[in-house]
Formats: sequence, C-alpha cells, structure tokens
Amino acid sequence: MSKIEEKLKQLGILLEPAKAPVANYLGSKRDGDLLYVSGRKSELSGAVGSDVTEKQAKTAARDTLVIMLAIIKQDIGDLDLIDGVVKLQGFIRSSDNFMRQPQILDGATELLIELFGESGKHARTATGVHQLPYGATIQLDMILKMKST
Amino acid sequence: MSKIEEKLKQLGILLEPAKAPVANYLGSKRDGDLLYVSGRKSELSGAVGSDVTEKQAKTAARDTLVIMLAIIKQDIGDLDLIDGVVKLQGFIRSSDNFMRQPQILDGATELLIELFGESGKHARTATGVHQLPYGATIQLDMILKMKST
Amino acid sequence: MSKIEEKLKQLGILLEPAKAPVANYLGSKRDGDLLYVSGRKSELSGAVGSDVTEKQAKTAARDTLVIMLAIIKQDIGDLDLIDGVVKLQGFIRSSDNFMRQPQILDGATELLIELFGESGKHARTATGVHQLPYGATIQLDMILKMKST
Repeated sequence: MSKIEEKLKQLGILLEPAKAPVANYLGSKRDGDLLYVSGRKSELSGAVGSDVTEKQAKTAARDTLVIMLAIIKQDIGDLDLIDGVVKLQGFIRSSDNFMRQPQILDGATELLIELFGESGKHARTATGVHQLPYGATIQLDMILKMKST
Repeated sequence: MSKIEEKLKQLGILLEPAKAPVANYLGSKRDGDLLYVSGRKSELSGAVGSDVTEKQAKTAARDTLVIMLAIIKQDIGDLDLIDGVVKLQGFIRSSDNFMRQPQILDGATELLIELFGESGKHARTATGVHQLPYGATIQLDMILKMKST
Repeated sequence: MSKIEEKLKQLGILLEPAKAPVANYLGSKRDGDLLYVSGRKSELSGAVGSDVTEKQAKTAARDTLVIMLAIIKQDIGDLDLIDGVVKLQGFIRSSDNFMRQPQILDGATELLIELFGESGKHARTATGVHQLPYGATIQLDMILKMKST
C-alpha cells in the first residue's frame, strides 16, 4: 500500500472506486510535471448558509478532495507519485449572505497538508457562487506537482 | 490552409477576424509551451434556465470556442501549432435553479476533441455564476499546449 | 530600493506589511519559474452596482493588487525578481444587473502594465459572482513569471 493511502487509512478514509466524469472529459490531464485535476463536485448538495451548515460544508470540502484522490489514483496509478500541491480552487455554493468561504475550503486544505506535509501547502482561492452542477455545495479543482519520472 | 482550419471548414465553421479585447489586456499569453487564453464571452446573452434554453447555451459554448480559435490564430499565426488542450474553465450564467453546467460546457469540449483528437481531451471545470460581462451566457478560458518550436 | 518599489513610490503607493492569510494556506507557491498567487480579497466590501460604484470597485481592484504585491514581496524578498505576468483572474461581486466586470478588473491590469511594462501584459478573465469572502467587492488571483535564478 502506498504511503499516502496508508495515511488515509490511519485517518479512517477509504478510497472508493472513482466514478467516471459525467461528460466527455478527463479526470485529470498531465503536462510535464504538473497534473491539472478537473473540477469535482461534492456529494452534498445545497447552499451553505441556508440549506447546509458551515460544518457540513467544510466536511463536504474534505470529502470532495477524497473523491478527487480516488480519481487521481485511477489516472496515475499510485498517489505516492504526487510531489506536492501547487494550487487549489474552491467554488462554494453560498446563500446570499454567507461570506466564510475560506473556512469551508479549509476542509480540503487541512487534509492536503495532513497527507503531503510541507509540500502539501498551496496557493488557493475560495470563491462564492450561487449555483453548481447538480446543486452541489462544493466544487474543487487543483494543480498538483508530480515527482519527475 | 492549416489542418485544423480544414477540419473547421468541414464542420461548416468559418473563423471570422478576431475582435480586439474590450479592455487593455492580451487575447492570450504564452509561457514556455503553454498558451494561456483570456476569458472570452459568448455573443449570446441571458441566463440559461430562464432567458435561454440548455440547447442554445450549449451551442453558445461551441460558438465561444470558435471565437477563441480566431483570437488564437491571430496571436500565434497558425492553429496547427497547437499540440493539445490542458485545461478548460467554463463559467455558465445560470438561473437560480439551473444545475446542468457540465452539459453546457460539452459544447466546447466536444469541438475541441473533434478538432484535436486524443490530445484535445482536457481537464475542465464547469461553474455556475449569476452574472457575466455584458450579460453573456458563457465565459470560457483555457490553457493550450503548443508544439515545441 | 527595488525598481518596482521605486515605481510604486512614484505612483504614491506604499506597500504596507502583508497580513497573514486568514486560513492555513500560502500567500503564494512557486513552481519552476511560475509563482501562483493565492486569491486575495479587497478591503472594500459590497456588491458593485448596488452597494458600491463602478469607480470605487475599479479602485478596489487596483488596491487589491497592491496588497498582493506586499504579500509577494514578503514571500520572494524582492519584487524585481518578477519577470512578468502570465494570467490574472478577477472575481467581481456584482449586483444582479451589473455587467461591466472587465472595466473593474482594468484597475489591476493597468497597474500591472504601469509597473512591468510590456511583460506586465497578461491573459485574464473577469467573472461576476454574487458573494465573496467577508463580503468583499473584489477577489484576484494570478500567475506570475519569475526571472530564472
């Protein structure tokens, strides 16, 4: 078992088989040592601040990252090939008055740092939007750095 | 005529001369072998789900990509210099209850794959927003891979 | 004093010490010769078109860029290490009917070109959103090109 999957297991997280993208595109695309990971929605739906709580949304951000890791594993074969995280973009479906998007995105940021340590630290942007695919609460995409092969 | 323009012609698509950006920025910027293409709006305006239909919006996504190709041709001289597509970002102006942003973005994704084949497959993110420049329905930006020169 | 800070001074702009990010992430992350700068909000809050004017929002975009330059200086030590600007993303908190996001983002674009000249010209995307962290009017992120070291 890879070191990253071992860490996930210690955190009580099991990677489930990845679902195929809902449309005709890739889960991720590699260019040189960078892996561009497609936007992925949370299983949780609803706007934070009205339909779902801040705590639920933060957990959903973490859960969405886990789904992305399953996709990435399927695409690259082994999560230990990841060298670090460059950029994380989070779109948070927000009620009109919800303004704590950074605290929601922390759910994903914290797990990335738990898994990848110092090299898991990243640039990021947490943006509020009024609607997302299938009414999801969270949509994440990211750019990962791969180990040179 | 370039191979890509030949394919466009076979699809009945003619590249019109590119309009200048509406503000003081570039249509695209090259860094190494990557070409970062600026966000471009659709000619169609209105929110999908209320003002425009899903079918109209999907067509508008395809048409927006054609506008971008005209800009890129003007910037790089020859579309055959494109090696593939890395990342596509789509912002879809959506009514409060419209949740099928991925199906709209397919309009652009499908044309990219028709034109560039396997290397036209890409990572992407389809996000809903409530407003876009000039009330446009679609806004796309992307990162292309260029052939090494 | 660096050349860029000298130019800022001539424009009457003083870089204030950077605030730490509001959550557990980096102000910027370098990958090769690119610097990915995290999303940063404006001090100004409110939606343009209702709470704040277009002129105020454009000034806020410029001011947000100044805040980002302070963060970048803290991260890389010397703004003269910047070779140019690759991509600028602007999220503009907009009232339902405000459609002039490009004109707002010009506030940041124009300062980048004043500071970095031809190499400060960039690809960019100006998108409308209904809510941003802490109700801010503007959120910017960008990718800078660094001089090879």
